[in-house]
Parts: sequence; C-alpha cells; structure tokens
Amino acid sequence: MVDLDRVDANISRVQGYCDAHGLNLRPHIKTHKIPAIALLQLQAGASGIACQKLGEAEVMADAGITDILLCYPVIGPLKTSRLVALAERVHLSTVVDSETGAAGLSLATTHRALELDVLVECDTGFHRTGVQTPKDAASLAAFVNSQPGLRFAGLLTYPTLPGTGDWLRAAVAECQKIGLHPTSVSTGGTPDWFGTHEIADVVTELRAGTYIYGDRACLADGSALLEHCAMRVRSTVVSRPTPGRAILDAGSKTLTTDMLIEGAGSGFGLILEYPAAIIYDLSEEHGHVDVSGCSDAPEIGDVLTVIPNHACGTTNLHDEIAFCRGDRIVEFAPVAARGRVR
Amino acid sequence: MVDLDRVDANISRVQGYCDAHGLNLRPHIKTHKIPAIALLQLQAGASGIACQKLGEAEVMADAGITDILLCYPVIGPLKTSRLVALAERVHLSTVVDSETGAAGLSLATTHRALELDVLVECDTGFHRTGVQTPKDAASLAAFVNSQPGLRFAGLLTYPTLPGTGDWLRAAVAECQKIGLHPTSVSTGGTPDWFGTHEIADVVTELRAGTYIYGDRACLADGSALLEHCAMRVRSTVVSRPTPGRAILDAGSKTLTTDMLIEGAGSGFGLILEYPAAIIYDLSEEHGHVDVSGCSDAPEIGDVLTVIPNHACGTTNLHDEIAFCRGDRIVEFAPVAARGRVR
Repeated sequence: MVDLDRVDANISRVQGYCDAHGLNLRPHIKTHKIPAIALLQLQAGASGIACQKLGEAEVMADAGITDILLCYPVIGPLKTSRLVALAERVHLSTVVDSETGAAGLSLATTHRALELDVLVECDTGFHRTGVQTPKDAASLAAFVNSQPGLRFAGLLTYPTLPGTGDWLRAAVAECQKIGLHPTSVSTGGTPDWFGTHEIADVVTELRAGTYIYGDRACLADGSALLEHCAMRVRSTVVSRPTPGRAILDAGSKTLTTDMLIEGAGSGFGLILEYPAAIIYDLSEEHGHVDVSGCSDAPEIGDVLTVIPNHACGTTNLHDEIAFCRGDRIVEFAPVAARGRVR
Repeated sequence: MVDLDRVDANISRVQGYCDAHGLNLRPHIKTHKIPAIALLQLQAGASGIACQKLGEAEVMADAGITDILLCYPVIGPLKTSRLVALAERVHLSTVVDSETGAAGLSLATTHRALELDVLVECDTGFHRTGVQTPKDAASLAAFVNSQPGLRFAGLLTYPTLPGTGDWLRAAVAECQKIGLHPTSVSTGGTPDWFGTHEIADVVTELRAGTYIYGDRACLADGSALLEHCAMRVRSTVVSRPTPGRAILDAGSKTLTTDMLIEGAGSGFGLILEYPAAIIYDLSEEHGHVDVSGCSDAPEIGDVLTVIPNHACGTTNLHDEIAFCRGDRIVEFAPVAARGRVR
C-alpha cells in the first residue's frame, strides 16, 4: 500500500527544498515505477525524470513524459538502437564512463538527425561506475564531443559523499581548461538529499528516488521520519508456534532480503503495531518474527503493517500497489515499469 | 535463461530416485512458477504439485493441474473462501499448525459438499511454522477430524533435518495411539533430497523445488553439480572503471540479494566464464565484480553467464524466462505464477 497523502507531502518537501536552493529536481522513478506518480512529481516542478533501465524509460515515454535522463551506461547495439529510437520521441539524455560506451552511442546515431545529450559519469568516491579522476572526466567529455551525433551535456555522479563537491569542482575546472562547459552537474541519492545545497555552487541537479515513499533505511540514515513513510506492506500473522515467535505471510518474495546499512539495526522491516518485534529471518513466503520483547503479542489472523527496509526493492516484487489516503484504498495501480530488466 | 535439456535431466534424476525408494515426488513449483514445467514433472511421474501461495495454486489449476498441495497455513475468510472454491475444482490439500487455522478452514466449507484433506504441519527442528511436539501433532490431527468439512490427511514438515525421522515416527505413533493413521507423511527441501530414503520407513512423500533448476546454493550444499544448473542470468559488462573492477547490468533487481548459507562462500552469483571473479556487491541494477583474481578479465560489452545464488528468488523477479536447449533459445515462457502474492 502507498499513502498518496504522504506521497504528496514528500513531493512538496523535496521540491520545495530544491526550489529554495536553485536546484533542478529530477526524481528517479526506480522507486515507484508508476507513471502516475512521475506525473505528480513533474506537475510539482520536477525538471524531468531519471530512469535506470531503458525499459523503464520506454514505459515512461509511452505515458507522455518528455524529458528523461537514462543514468546508466547503455552498452551493445541492441540497446543503443532502442535508445536512439526513444531519443527521437522524447528529450532523452544519457551517460557514459568509457570511450567504448561513447563510440557505441555515436554509432547508433548514424543516419539519424539527432544530437544525443551525453553526460560523463564520475566516480566521486562510491567505487561503482564512473571515470576515476577529474582529468579523466574532461578527457572523456572531449571524446564525447568528438563523436558524431553526441553532445557533451555535463557531469553526473552518485551518491553525494563528503568529497563529491571538491571532485566535481575540479572536474568542471578541467573541462573549462579545454573549453568545455558542463551545463548540467547532476548528483543523486536520497540519503543525503538535504545536504545538496552545501555544494549548490557546482551542482545544478538533484536526482533522488526513495524520498517518494521512504523506508526503514531512510529512517536509519535520517533522510525521512516515520510520518514520511508512504509505503507499507500489509501482512497476516499465519502462525504462532511458540510464545516468542510469530510468522507473517510476507517473506523475501514480498519484502526482499535487502538489509539496512551496516550498524543501523537488524531485521527485515519495522512492524508499526509492534515496534519491539524483530523480523529476524525471511523464508520466501514467511517472515520469522521474534515477539518475545513485546508486552502484548499479535494473534493468528491479525493483519500487521510493515515498513520495508528498501522501498525500491519491494516495488520491484509487486505487480500492483494499492493507493490509499489514510485507511481508505482509492485505486489499485499497476507497477507499469516493473520487470523491464532489458 | 533455462536450459530444458538440463531440466529434463533433473526431473529424471529426482523422479528416478523417488521411484527407486517408493517415495511419492511432489515438486514444489515455487522455483519455476511455470505451468509447462509443472506438466513435465507430472508426466515424468510426480504424484501432484506443491504450491506456497493460493494465487500460485489458482494459476496451476487453470493450467489443468488437478492434484495440488498448498503447504502453507491459509488464514482469514477472504483466503479460505478462495481455497474452498479451488478445492471444488481440483483435489486440493492443505496444512494447519493451529486450531484457529483448522477452525477457519472448517468454517469456509460450510454449505459446501466438500471434505478438505488437511495435513498437520510439524516443526521438526527448523523453528519456523509447525506444532512443537509429536503429541501436539496428534492432538491437532484429532481436532482437524472433529471439524466439519475437514479430514486429517497426514503430517508435513520442512526441511529434512537429522532429527526429522525420529520426530515423525513419534508423531505417527502418537496419532496411532488415538486411532488416527496419517496416509501421507511429507517432507521437503532440495538440500537434503538425496537422503530421504534413509527415513522412507516413515516418510511417504518428498516435496522439492530447487532441484529443477539448481543454483549456487545447491552447488554449495552438494545437492547439485554444475552440470545440473539449468538457470543462468545473461548479463553485459557495462563498465570497467578500474583494472580490478567490472560492472555487470545485473543487480539486486535481477539476481536478488539472497546470500548463500553461512560459511559457503561470499558473493551474489558464479560467473561461469570467470570463476575467479567475485560479485562482491549489488546495487539495484549493477553487479559489482572484483576481477583482480582473473588472469584475463572481461571487457565492456562482453556478455557473461551467471549462476544465481538462489533460483527461486531469481524466478520471482522475472516476468519471462528464455527456454533454451544448449545455446539455442526455443521459446520465451511467461512466469505465470509470479507476483501472485495474495
């Protein structure tokens, strides 16, 4: 279930922050994968959306969304040809972190009247994708501009770490040295969204996803309070085999096995009615709950409300979400971009 | 991708074992969730199928399967009424581990010309669902038989542990003391399937799921060899940011964050082409791979073959599976019972 009142409030809160600090907000739809929510985000002032998979971007374009950043290196001719076809329908920008990636995108634009906006992905400390130094960022930016059909559009990183601002400032300076001016400098992530204004001298855009729903990880890292958590998994107690144990009908196929960041607490979700209960293990369809710390314990048949550890992973398991306002279900919405792994 | 040649061989292997030892094999479809594979299992001699969710059972019944064990305690009137409706279409048996559960099933059979076969679920050491002692098993069996519309059909447990045989023998003896004769004694789980003959004096039925595909957990626990692993995730190298790191386009939304059993090795999957590579972390759409131990490392654009840690969790993420025989794709099959969480 997703409470739309809380969704509305979360949109206002983060959009308001970005507006106050002169930042573009580009919500990442990986958290909800539902066009109707993306449209709410755009109506509130978002400058566009971000997607992680080409298939997600195609679903969002089909829903009428016209400004999409695919912030993932798209590799291989089957995908780059789909990407270029999509870029002829909407304003699609994307990222590269290698000359191989840039050359592949360029090749796909052959015989198309298209200039693709391409950002250079920068590894500012997370050690995932991205070029490794500010100098490398400028070199790849120049390579992008040398490729037919591509236009260097800026720099992108994920997430925002203590060194991210300095890294990006150095990369902008390296670009300027060779006459390139990144129009967009995009950073991402919900855990640190509220600190983006501190580096707004260099950053122009915030990409954030999880803020839309909130989850137990957001509670742990301080990016959301309980009142911001819009997603809940309603689950039934199906067994009380011992006084200390309750079994829920929500397991890893409902909640995911995603864990919190280290040190932030154990368990696979927060049970609102029994905050002292611990979901200490998950089978595929069973949540194993230690209720020994609860003064009053749930009974078979009770329906409990779980805030999942990770909203994005949970979304990805469910074909449909019940939209509600307070306790009233107002609509069942298909999670239209779920399962678009290709 | 799922290699049907290996699926055929896995079916023959486990069905042959059960035939040799006078055990009924009741495959658990949670691993594949595809009616066509369930039908292959039945054609080879399976006595019926097992499902974990009512929604899965409904999909399998719609596909023409007529003997289904729903080995999960079904609680609450919305579900018990669906269960009873299904039991009027096919031979459906189910389990209880509480009087509350049995009374709920009985109530749902009111005004129906139906005797529902109900097994008593036993906790023989796993500490999940199930009655706690052999005496409790017999008491609940008697309660089941006292309830209108229900018939005690046997005992069920998961998984097979060192004490499972003795536990079940004691429970059968307790049942016999009060004049009850369990016609089915069902145990489950792929990790120990090949030891079921050692307790075939009391066990009549093996429920196993994961044997159909195999996975990295099966390799770790010895229940499958590499040649038995039928499920592979084909994934593209999208980034080589450093000499020691490669990034795959398969993350937690493709492979799950399910880990191996403790001590059985780290990482989120086995890359067949680079067995020395370690998938040491997953983002939602990125697999983070340490290739520093590989003599020759993959390049951007290479497509790699991953044996996932957990086939059942991986199935649950994908709407469609590519059936292949060797390297040839023969069909795309919808994972029809995926997402039936209710």
